[in-house]
Amino acid sequence: MQVVKEGDRFVLRLDDGQDLFETLSGFAQKEGLRAGAVVFGIGMFRKATIGYWDGTAYKPHELSVPHEVVALHGTIARADDNPSLHLHCALAGPDHHLVGGHLIRATIGILQEVVIESFPGRTFERPMVESLGLRMLDLEPGRRA
Amino acid sequence: MQVVKEGDRFVLRLDDGQDLFETLSGFAQKEGLRAGAVVFGIGMFRKATIGYWDGTAYKPHELSVPHEVVALHGTIARADDNPSLHLHCALAGPDHHLVGGHLIRATIGILQEVVIESFPGRTFERPMVESLGLRMLDLEPGRRA
Amino acid sequence: MQVVKEGDRFVLRLDDGQDLFETLSGFAQKEGLRAGAVVFGIGMFRKATIGYWDGTAYKPHELSVPHEVVALHGTIARADDNPSLHLHCALAGPDHHLVGGHLIRATIGILQEVVIESFPGRTFERPMVESLGLRMLDLEPGRRA
Repeated sequence: MQVVKEGDRFVLRLDDGQDLFETLSGFAQKEGLRAGAVVFGIGMFRKATIGYWDGTAYKPHELSVPHEVVALHGTIARADDNPSLHLHCALAGPDHHLVGGHLIRATIGILQEVVIESFPGRTFERPMVESLGLRMLDLEPGRRA
Repeated sequence: MQVVKEGDRFVLRLDDGQDLFETLSGFAQKEGLRAGAVVFGIGMFRKATIGYWDGTAYKPHELSVPHEVVALHGTIARADDNPSLHLHCALAGPDHHLVGGHLIRATIGILQEVVIESFPGRTFERPMVESLGLRMLDLEPGRRA
Repeated sequence: MQVVKEGDRFVLRLDDGQDLFETLSGFAQKEGLRAGAVVFGIGMFRKATIGYWDGTAYKPHELSVPHEVVALHGTIARADDNPSLHLHCALAGPDHHLVGGHLIRATIGILQEVVIESFPGRTFERPMVESLGLRMLDLEPGRRA
């Protein structure tokens, strides 16, 4: 894995076999990144599980073959004092058709090129909203008090 | 809705039931944002209509169920002295397959996380090009004179 | 074609009939851009060929009709002392369904709105990795020595 930093921006190259969430969470933790955006990621997933929120739960779909990652976007916040990633993706299979949704888990295939922006001095949080059964992004946790 | 500003960048959280175009246009108007980019948006659309340009008109498709928003990108300009948004999107349905195209209208479901960049001091315009029947982005309206 | 520059960011409007790779490579060459990211592109492709990496080669798919470009992301590096673009895309056809993958070639239809970020002072490279038969992004070519 490679990471370069330029101001508030990072470019990462994740490598074959790395767990996406584990790797990006470790990166956020190491950099002290408490508020950020995954501007985009492209590359390949060897394995991935995507979900569709049906109102009460994520209906999962586990991909059985590697897919090209054509879009990967989301936000980096904090939840229970740990990095919290919310990522959505679009993935192309061998027939070039796209599937996607809420990304539940993913393992990099070959590589993943990722651009991340941080908002230093800020903290985004992702508290559980019990009425929805979902964690919801809170951009101004201090303001809620 | 929440909005945080960091330099030329904004992070927005739109809320359930909000009209996407109305909300982003109101945001652009309030911030005096005359040139910008919707870097990405993710979340859910409760309702949306997408279009495919067939050469003479947008062939519309109205989604009958909520969809995960896996990609939302576009530009913010001015048209007839109002904010003008040009947005394209990729949306995942309950079967995880993706549909998308030119976004005609959308209502947020649950939430929408959006990152916007502004180009202060600039004005992008989107004048109607009569020969095409389309509004086209003009990055340097002053230069055309 | 129009190009505006704001700090390390560029907004481009590519025009109908332009070759995407040729145009962006020419832009990178002219600007001396040796490390960059295509944050996003939206618009239309009159023609395009996309690929799925099957482990040994890109399985190509040539589109027979124009498609809406709903996502276009990637990185700009150097390879053999020339600009090297790695782009993935999601494209919507007349039936609004999406196809996509690794972008092999594309011709703009109507227009393409593109946002690019540069990382001045850096050079990304994309050397051939013979064992994979693929060019792989190297963010820190100096560090490998």
